Amino acid sequence: MGLCQRWRLLRLPGFQACGLHTVREAAVPTPPNWLVERRGLFEELWTAQVKRLESMAQKEQRAIRISLPGGQKVDAVAWKTTPYQLAQQISSKLADTAVAAQVNGEPYDLERPLETDSDLRFLTFDSPEGKAVFWHSSTHVLGAAAEQLLGAVLCQGPSTECGFYHDFFLGKERTVRGSELPALERVCRELAAAAQPFRRLEASQDQLRQLFKDNPFKLRLIEEKVTGPTATVYGCGLLVDLCRGPHLRHTGQIGGLKLLTNSSSSWRFSGAPETLQRVSGISFPTAEELRAWEEWREEAELRDHRRIGKEQELFFFHELSPGSCFFLPRGTRVYNALVAFIRAEYTRRGFSEVKTPTLFSTKLWEQSGHWEHYREDMFALQTPGSDRPTCSQNDHHTSRPTDTLALKPMNCPAHCLMFAHRPRSWRELPLRLADFGALHRAEASGSLGGLTRLRRFQQDDAHIFCAPAQLEAEIRSCLDFLRSVYAVLGFSFHLALSTRPSGFLGEPCLWDQAEQVLQQALEEFGEPWDLNPGDGAFYGPKIDVHLHDALGRPHQCGTIQLDFQLPLRFDLQYRGQAGALERPVLIHRAVLGSVERMLGVLAESCGGKWPLWLSPFQVVVIPVGAEQEEYAREAQQSLRAVGLAADLDADPGLTLGRRVRRAQLAHYNFLFGSKLCPEGREQKPLSRIT
Amino acid sequence: MGLCQRWRLLRLPGFQACGLHTVREAAVPTPPNWLVERRGLFEELWTAQVKRLESMAQKEQRAIRISLPGGQKVDAVAWKTTPYQLAQQISSKLADTAVAAQVNGEPYDLERPLETDSDLRFLTFDSPEGKAVFWHSSTHVLGAAAEQLLGAVLCQGPSTECGFYHDFFLGKERTVRGSELPALERVCRELAAAAQPFRRLEASQDQLRQLFKDNPFKLRLIEEKVTGPTATVYGCGLLVDLCRGPHLRHTGQIGGLKLLTNSSSSWRFSGAPETLQRVSGISFPTAEELRAWEEWREEAELRDHRRIGKEQELFFFHELSPGSCFFLPRGTRVYNALVAFIRAEYTRRGFSEVKTPTLFSTKLWEQSGHWEHYREDMFALQTPGSDRPTCSQNDHHTSRPTDTLALKPMNCPAHCLMFAHRPRSWRELPLRLADFGALHRAEASGSLGGLTRLRRFQQDDAHIFCAPAQLEAEIRSCLDFLRSVYAVLGFSFHLALSTRPSGFLGEPCLWDQAEQVLQQALEEFGEPWDLNPGDGAFYGPKIDVHLHDALGRPHQCGTIQLDFQLPLRFDLQYRGQAGALERPVLIHRAVLGSVERMLGVLAESCGGKWPLWLSPFQVVVIPVGAEQEEYAREAQQSLRAVGLAADLDADPGLTLGRRVRRAQLAHYNFLFGSKLCPEGREQKPLSRIT
Repeated sequence: MGLCQRWRLLRLPGFQACGLHTVREAAVPTPPNWLVERRGLFEELWTAQVKRLESMAQKEQRAIRISLPGGQKVDAVAWKTTPYQLAQQISSKLADTAVAAQVNGEPYDLERPLETDSDLRFLTFDSPEGKAVFWHSSTHVLGAAAEQLLGAVLCQGPSTECGFYHDFFLGKERTVRGSELPALERVCRELAAAAQPFRRLEASQDQLRQLFKDNPFKLRLIEEKVTGPTATVYGCGLLVDLCRGPHLRHTGQIGGLKLLTNSSSSWRFSGAPETLQRVSGISFPTAEELRAWEEWREEAELRDHRRIGKEQELFFFHELSPGSCFFLPRGTRVYNALVAFIRAEYTRRGFSEVKTPTLFSTKLWEQSGHWEHYREDMFALQTPGSDRPTCSQNDHHTSRPTDTLALKPMNCPAHCLMFAHRPRSWRELPLRLADFGALHRAEASGSLGGLTRLRRFQQDDAHIFCAPAQLEAEIRSCLDFLRSVYAVLGFSFHLALSTRPSGFLGEPCLWDQAEQVLQQALEEFGEPWDLNPGDGAFYGPKIDVHLHDALGRPHQCGTIQLDFQLPLRFDLQYRGQAGALERPVLIHRAVLGSVERMLGVLAESCGGKWPLWLSPFQVVVIPVGAEQEEYAREAQQSLRAVGLAADLDADPGLTLGRRVRRAQLAHYNFLFGSKLCPEGREQKPLSRIT
Repeated sequence: MGLCQRWRLLRLPGFQACGLHTVREAAVPTPPNWLVERRGLFEELWTAQVKRLESMAQKEQRAIRISLPGGQKVDAVAWKTTPYQLAQQISSKLADTAVAAQVNGEPYDLERPLETDSDLRFLTFDSPEGKAVFWHSSTHVLGAAAEQLLGAVLCQGPSTECGFYHDFFLGKERTVRGSELPALERVCRELAAAAQPFRRLEASQDQLRQLFKDNPFKLRLIEEKVTGPTATVYGCGLLVDLCRGPHLRHTGQIGGLKLLTNSSSSWRFSGAPETLQRVSGISFPTAEELRAWEEWREEAELRDHRRIGKEQELFFFHELSPGSCFFLPRGTRVYNALVAFIRAEYTRRGFSEVKTPTLFSTKLWEQSGHWEHYREDMFALQTPGSDRPTCSQNDHHTSRPTDTLALKPMNCPAHCLMFAHRPRSWRELPLRLADFGALHRAEASGSLGGLTRLRRFQQDDAHIFCAPAQLEAEIRSCLDFLRSVYAVLGFSFHLALSTRPSGFLGEPCLWDQAEQVLQQALEEFGEPWDLNPGDGAFYGPKIDVHLHDALGRPHQCGTIQLDFQLPLRFDLQYRGQAGALERPVLIHRAVLGSVERMLGVLAESCGGKWPLWLSPFQVVVIPVGAEQEEYAREAQQSLRAVGLAADLDADPGLTLGRRVRRAQLAHYNFLFGSKLCPEGREQKPLSRIT
């Protein structure tokens, strides 16, 4: 049966007139038969499972040992003692705030009996894993509300980095409107307030198919994803959903919930795509936390760099070049100040700036490996002029480019060509090549957003070719480079070392050595750092850098990566001190990351109040009246001539006071006013107003 | 008969063993029959023509009036008096140095009788037209030598901007080698010394086919190009060639001749291409002039920017990105210094730098007109990822770019979008937007050469949007900008005003006004300028700027162009002072032109001895011995930290004297040495060696 046909069958009388915009204040309609029926079947299976577990617990009556966080060990009973009971033993606060458990590193429901000797940890909302469980549980509440209020056929609903969403089907014609979100949110809150427990059921494939016989999405998922004899299903109030878990103990733990956006999405899970409705939201343990988040979000929206970029005329986007930013004069000023800052650091730190081409034959990308791994994110070129007429007889023997060409998405291969273009000696190392060249990546249009993700951007990209013995010193100076730049920009930061992943390339001993060198450099550097085992790139270990802006939000901008592969692929060599040819190590590093993105982060971090050295609003000259305008204009020219961003506000339609207020709102670093002497002829020098 | 078969027939016994490398000192072989036969036929036709002309001259005996340069009028006899006779009447020097005549503006042989009342001018080697005749005549000498020495089947041989070349066929297997040029040159010189006259013959199509029955190229040319009943043929010694003329009086006027290069070329004149041999050369009226040219060329070769670029490690090219330059650290230094110089001028002169995208939808190029007129010189993009697998089910509904995109060849359309992105007021004008964005043009590979013609380059490109009343002041400041930059760079320059061409677009009264404004600005500017009527672009008049480098060679770098069309095509408007919407005028201007090309011109102009501010060789620190090396290294670091390009020459294998000499040859601006105090412990401050 087709999805649409099934939908029509599902639209029972109770739902017929159920456009939410008409029932904003209406109660949840009487649940349709299929929902009641599914719930009945779940209850039946649940009762059986409870009995099965009880008999199992009685039969075995086995004592087990549970290690708690901090090393303490406690006794428990297999198939009976739950993590929640142990949390209560530790403290009632922990029992209240825990959202789930981790048993031997695996996520685990708090009310699920422990089965064997285990390490036990508790997850709270404070940790990323705890948030994931919390928001994942919240999306079930949203799903239940959509089923009961809209008659939705649920598809799936994951947690995200900042909340959750649920995708569901409402028929071919029906969409969810923004105006319907308040009613849906009200139902969510009611369901949360009902404090309905999440109940975990182990069901066989047959039972699964029976439970979800009315939902073609779930049937498809069961068919494709459930490979074992059983899978888990959770029941919560009227809702029954296919889900791996874990969840909160009950919906009452959700103290604050807000729905945020509605949009359409696509079901692409093998087969023809189907248009779904997506509703997203966020939730917190308490209503206070939700309110605090709403305030924070308001502040963040005020600081949104797209908004600041528009208000301050820093940049704009245009449909004729999506994903590429147009920097207006003021934005270019900030941009150039950032580049000049890094350039000055390069000079101090022995980096050599170079300029490399934008377009390369795909042969280069084949050699570097990008063509194999990165091709679909690259812009490739048609051969121009292949249909042009034959050249006239007098022409030299010429040809238009015939290779396939692609725009560079990264600078490293060009720098490898530069290293390789003549024989190199150990005396030249470390060779630190820096490049601000424009990079292009064919990002999907849906992922483009302001300066955060672009199709065209420039990096403060440098590649260090060094001897293995120089590695540690180079890494230390890279870290020092990061610290001093972030200090100037007003960011704190956090470091993490990512080591070899499974499937790494190269010699294990080389990796051992390199990881050790990185670790030593990090330790000597003296800032705290984390270890992310197995999180490195396949071509080398790396140091991830997360900076924190003025609002405490994390951004990944800088990076330090070792690369053992490119020197091999480009057969890079240098004549060592002993006379033999040796292979250099390559370090990829960036501090700002994308200059564009950093400009956006800075705009938000300073909330549009730029520090003087970066500011596109350094000075505004405000003449007291029309008579001083000419002098004010001269003053503005003098200020500009020495390189200051100086504007003039001589608007005759506004009083002096209003113009001063306007300049303050625009966050000018300095306001200068000019006025006449009493005699009325001689001009006084400019005086600073604020 | 196929060309190759014919070639075999032509290879008569005299030529059989005639690889030139074996006969370098051999005399010219006995001419083959077909050559003697062709010459015989030419002589026959020539005798008949002489008789015909004589009888014509006697029959008519008509007096004609000839206007000479300077306005003087002289009497002459139709079909009898020649320009050469009149030149003799004026001065024997003129008769000696004239290379051809111009009769009523048309080129004319000096020995060809005048036919009617005419304006007469004489061409000498000093003018471009005179050089063209001189070199065109010289290429016939080269052709004759190739025929007689190599048995070449001549194809064609034009003059070029700096000499001449001749293309000929030697059979499928045979090429001309560089080692053969001296012998060929010797024969050319012998033929020149023989002072053989160039004789102009009017021949019928039948006669042409008879004369060139052994040359398939000429037969093809006769078939395709000779549309009238007759065409001209020139005889000169053994040579007979199809040619429009005019020529020198005789080969003895060629006092100095040198062959320069050998290469292959292609015959593409309809039909399958055939590989030909090309020999190029240059010639002068006297041996002294040739010697002077050889000296100049030696100097120019020493100064060739490709040579300097390689020797000084400024830049290189790579086959994986043809036509795009890789700037090494030293080249980037010069490049950035040039950009910083222009940036500082922008600040002083009220230009606003902006940054615009590299890739645009072809819709933009359609709007600007580039797609119609310039498409084949643009790099267009395939849509990336059209063959990628379907996205996973969790993805947002996204799409990859689907428009056709093209790399910008010019910045102007992007600046028009920037002007148009919000309403503009007269208070914002003139708006001067400057952009160093990378431009891409799909130049044919045969036309690429060093930094002179590139596929990727950046311009010091700015577009001024102004009110018509501001035009004159803006043009004057553009001219002032040019003058002050060229003064710093050490260039003189010459200006020319190009006015409306036939087929110009827009209102004639607008053109009148604009041309007048430009003329007035030029006059007030005070430098000499030329008028090139009809040489403007179809979209507006322009001022061409030719600068002259230290060797006196001209380069076109800067430009100032008005544009009435783009403001129309982009419907650009601003709110005028009176409140009505008005259309701005657009000025395109550049001073350096392409930064890359200017870097090449500067390298040649300074011969690699860079002025301090541009120099990538500002300081070299030379420690006296190994003991001072560490201190010298510190000194180098300090110099670098303040932004100087400082190198260290601590090569232990060379004496101090040799290292000083090496630094001088490398044209370092400053040489610093460090030495120990007598006590041997304390370091003296650096002292300047030279």
